[in-house]
Amino acid sequence: MNTKNKPKRKMPTAHDVAIKQKNIKTNNETAMVSSMPHASGKGVLKIIPLGGLGEIGKNMTVYEYENDIIIIDMGFIFPDGDMLGVDYLIPDISYLQDKKDKIRGVLITHAHEDHVGGIPYILPQLNAPIYAPKLTCGLIEAKIAEHPGARGIKLNVIDPDKDKIKLGTFEIEWFRVAHSIPDSVGIIMNTPEGRIVYTGDFRFDHSPVDGKKTDMAKLSRLGDKGVLALLSDSTNSEVPGFSISEQTIANTFDNIFEKAPGRIIVAAFASQINRIQLVINAAQKHHRKIAFSGRSLLRNIEVAQRLGYLKIPQGIAMKIQDIATYSPDKVAIMCTGSQGEAMAALSRIARGEHKQIKVGKGDTVVYSSSPIPGNETSITTVVDDLFRRGAEVIFDEKQGDRTHVSGHPGEEELKLMMELVRPKYLIPWHGEVHHLVHHAQLAQSIGIPKENTFVLDNGNVLEVAHGKIVLADKKVQNGIVLVDGLGVGDIGEIVLRDRKVMATEGMFVVICTVDKKTGRLLTSPDIISRGFIYMRENEQLVNNARNEVKKLMVRRDGEPMPDWTKMKLKIRDQVSQYLYSFTKRSPMVIAVIIEV
Amino acid sequence: MNTKNKPKRKMPTAHDVAIKQKNIKTNNETAMVSSMPHASGKGVLKIIPLGGLGEIGKNMTVYEYENDIIIIDMGFIFPDGDMLGVDYLIPDISYLQDKKDKIRGVLITHAHEDHVGGIPYILPQLNAPIYAPKLTCGLIEAKIAEHPGARGIKLNVIDPDKDKIKLGTFEIEWFRVAHSIPDSVGIIMNTPEGRIVYTGDFRFDHSPVDGKKTDMAKLSRLGDKGVLALLSDSTNSEVPGFSISEQTIANTFDNIFEKAPGRIIVAAFASQINRIQLVINAAQKHHRKIAFSGRSLLRNIEVAQRLGYLKIPQGIAMKIQDIATYSPDKVAIMCTGSQGEAMAALSRIARGEHKQIKVGKGDTVVYSSSPIPGNETSITTVVDDLFRRGAEVIFDEKQGDRTHVSGHPGEEELKLMMELVRPKYLIPWHGEVHHLVHHAQLAQSIGIPKENTFVLDNGNVLEVAHGKIVLADKKVQNGIVLVDGLGVGDIGEIVLRDRKVMATEGMFVVICTVDKKTGRLLTSPDIISRGFIYMRENEQLVNNARNEVKKLMVRRDGEPMPDWTKMKLKIRDQVSQYLYSFTKRSPMVIAVIIEV
Repeated sequence: MNTKNKPKRKMPTAHDVAIKQKNIKTNNETAMVSSMPHASGKGVLKIIPLGGLGEIGKNMTVYEYENDIIIIDMGFIFPDGDMLGVDYLIPDISYLQDKKDKIRGVLITHAHEDHVGGIPYILPQLNAPIYAPKLTCGLIEAKIAEHPGARGIKLNVIDPDKDKIKLGTFEIEWFRVAHSIPDSVGIIMNTPEGRIVYTGDFRFDHSPVDGKKTDMAKLSRLGDKGVLALLSDSTNSEVPGFSISEQTIANTFDNIFEKAPGRIIVAAFASQINRIQLVINAAQKHHRKIAFSGRSLLRNIEVAQRLGYLKIPQGIAMKIQDIATYSPDKVAIMCTGSQGEAMAALSRIARGEHKQIKVGKGDTVVYSSSPIPGNETSITTVVDDLFRRGAEVIFDEKQGDRTHVSGHPGEEELKLMMELVRPKYLIPWHGEVHHLVHHAQLAQSIGIPKENTFVLDNGNVLEVAHGKIVLADKKVQNGIVLVDGLGVGDIGEIVLRDRKVMATEGMFVVICTVDKKTGRLLTSPDIISRGFIYMRENEQLVNNARNEVKKLMVRRDGEPMPDWTKMKLKIRDQVSQYLYSFTKRSPMVIAVIIEV
Repeated sequence: MNTKNKPKRKMPTAHDVAIKQKNIKTNNETAMVSSMPHASGKGVLKIIPLGGLGEIGKNMTVYEYENDIIIIDMGFIFPDGDMLGVDYLIPDISYLQDKKDKIRGVLITHAHEDHVGGIPYILPQLNAPIYAPKLTCGLIEAKIAEHPGARGIKLNVIDPDKDKIKLGTFEIEWFRVAHSIPDSVGIIMNTPEGRIVYTGDFRFDHSPVDGKKTDMAKLSRLGDKGVLALLSDSTNSEVPGFSISEQTIANTFDNIFEKAPGRIIVAAFASQINRIQLVINAAQKHHRKIAFSGRSLLRNIEVAQRLGYLKIPQGIAMKIQDIATYSPDKVAIMCTGSQGEAMAALSRIARGEHKQIKVGKGDTVVYSSSPIPGNETSITTVVDDLFRRGAEVIFDEKQGDRTHVSGHPGEEELKLMMELVRPKYLIPWHGEVHHLVHHAQLAQSIGIPKENTFVLDNGNVLEVAHGKIVLADKKVQNGIVLVDGLGVGDIGEIVLRDRKVMATEGMFVVICTVDKKTGRLLTSPDIISRGFIYMRENEQLVNNARNEVKKLMVRRDGEPMPDWTKMKLKIRDQVSQYLYSFTKRSPMVIAVIIEV
């Protein structure tokens, strides 16, 4: 092993955190480069995904080298239907609890919720500074302003084209990537054990709306210098070919705006800044005024416009309250709700509940997003309601022109990324297991040995040392923390289990008031039930249940006082059995004994 | 209007129900034919969809002419995630309640659940005989055997190639259609007001697995005779082109069975009899034994084999318990669970909970069905678990070869159907609103005037008279009835609303025991909560809530007795407000006052 070119490094102290440590040039790049791919420090670099593997969402990865930790991304994921009443799931950060003073910084690749959504909940516990490009910082700033507990988070704007910073032992550089939100970046980590490159979410779009392409030249230079491991976006690893340029949508919008006889309503994600620009451009070209509806959309537009990422020509924007004052063929509207979210603008429009926007015959609604798996039925409900109101709805690629393209790379783009970067190891990142498996197979198809790919789960630990990467036997603690209302982590298994039972079968509470001296019932047992069956139509059932309880509570003279804890269990079992036998349902039965 | 050729008809009596009334030839076909398309009786034929329009599921349509009613199909639909704990939704049949003695028969087009699933719940209330082909009757028979309340339903086997029966005024004929289950038929209703043709679910497959094609010759002869209205399957009206023959899947299976090194597990719907045959054929060709797992699958195989619709060669079938005794490359398994259903065979296999079937490296799992919208996330969970166990999983068309084809007609097939039948009116049937809208647009594209198409909702009434069809102003009562556990209709709005609150926020019960003479609290208020927050970690919150209640219950000497109903409302409001202010959650708060 070549050690003589090994760069000498001063071990950082525990508080060697580089706030606003911009444009720091290091002198040892040559040394590092020539030591690739067999660079070696004294320690072991650990790469630990706490979220984002085996799922699409809550991306968060820990990179740890001796006394230094950096974190990349801090997202949330929406819960599935089983997690009743839970708003978001965030990664479990137990692993970091005793390592807080090692954390040198949090690097954010772009401002989508699966990469930034966890910040207001997690970062206040860690107190580390964020490093990200300008728009990303702007959108994070607007987001944490809504969370009192998240004030005080330090945001450092970096320039991905120029900056190189040192965070403890880690030397960080960035490269621009094209994605569905501007200022998306990939991250280069120069470590004592070699160079690690994480793509973030990316695609190769040779004609992006904002003109910012994936920086192929920089990636190719990285390939020249040597890259130990490439961690790459797997979301579309099963999609053949090359993704379609966002520019093609401009043509579709042009056609739609040309022909639509009435108002045009375009639904998209609030974070699709480039898409918003395309709609503004189409409105301008076809002499329509444009209005926006949806809180998060308005917030993001304010930030993007202020920071120069969105150009709204003078006189084209109007307030949503004013749309009625213009002829329908002079009106364009952009709104949220493309996923069928019940309270979003488009859903309220479809139900006829939106105060300012009514749709009808002649109006055209355009979905400019694809359904997130699981949302299909909600979306269909909204689409059908819009059709019922007489609107024309363009919502599916099968219908012809594209009104949406994916922001993730298809098979050929993944291969292109590997060919440019030429990593020794390809580690599929960001995807469900089947995405990761296919990405690894793609790598093998272009000559990366199978043993140099890893299909990982959250909590796995990759150990990098002496130019080699191995998968550690043991996982670190990982999992999900539930966020509900204002609270983080105070909803757990038991609460969820109770909710599930009450949700599907209802509850049935039996209250017995007893004389504390005699242990005898003072009144007939009270019964309260909700979500089970119509109580008024089932009086007989309730009376029978009450009689079952009375029988259990009969006390003979001289009998010792019952054990009330056991009695409660008995009541629960007896009543449950009775209810099941007559209804084939098992509500949550709760027995209460009150001694007076 | 031509009335001289109008057929003379005896009005049927109220009990003119034709049980086992097979092979009845009518003599007035010529008269009817020459009277088309301007046939006219004295009355009005009403066509009333009670389910299946604006949705995919719970198909049920009423055809009513004076004293005669026939019903086509009686399906259920699965509820969406909002309908907590509800098993199925069936159509509301209030419209039929006072017309039961008019119902001459129930015609079933094929044995899929969206066409037969409602039978055990609805038909016992109506007591009318079923008419359907052999396999359909066989599968219905097996289904109702599991419902004690549904015994006594009369099943009449018809031969779709030959039979013609009279049900009151209606003369019924059938035509075979290719679909994903054998013995699928369309229905021809010769009525005094003209000939109405309903396709049922169909496609044109020129090489179906069972050799039974959609009967184009019969359809074309119908076109010659004249058809007033064609009601046609709209499910895939947005899919361009012509659907792919089921036979292409045979080639895919051949490839998979050729290459797979270990066991092969194919997941499909239990009702996909033709698909089962394809898998059996592939197993035979590649010298594998085959086993089946899943209750409904076994039931359907038993029926289909007994009735001659499934051929299992001697010696190829084995019991699921015996798979371990064969070398993995000699084993094929077919199972249910292709939709990610938690308790189905494939899901249990993926979780490692299936008693007889373990999967691992070398095994291949094939999904031979497409995801029903809404099931995507559950399916992905299962797929990922299978990948984690090391299995190869073929689950997505994007991956290459087709392991599934749709049973519904694409755009070109819908046009072909219209060209054959040449109806005056095309009425899109069986689909969500957007499917219906596009189907109507397709009809217009081949020359059917817009005013001769109708996009309907459930409950709409089409009135057919004098060779014209008009949409009535008023809807009949329609909607959904919830089926939960054993009960039909005893879960409704209020119960569901309560479940939803408890499901998302939990519940919080406050029990006050008071002296009935003084109205004073006898004990500190008891509090029970479930599904809200961890009570043990939030004692302070509970104590504070208790103190709020105590304050409300303070009674000064000489004060009149409180109105306990009002007091309960006060407690509920006060406690709700307190809990919300501290947790931003709104559990269901219930106040109970017990007077002792």
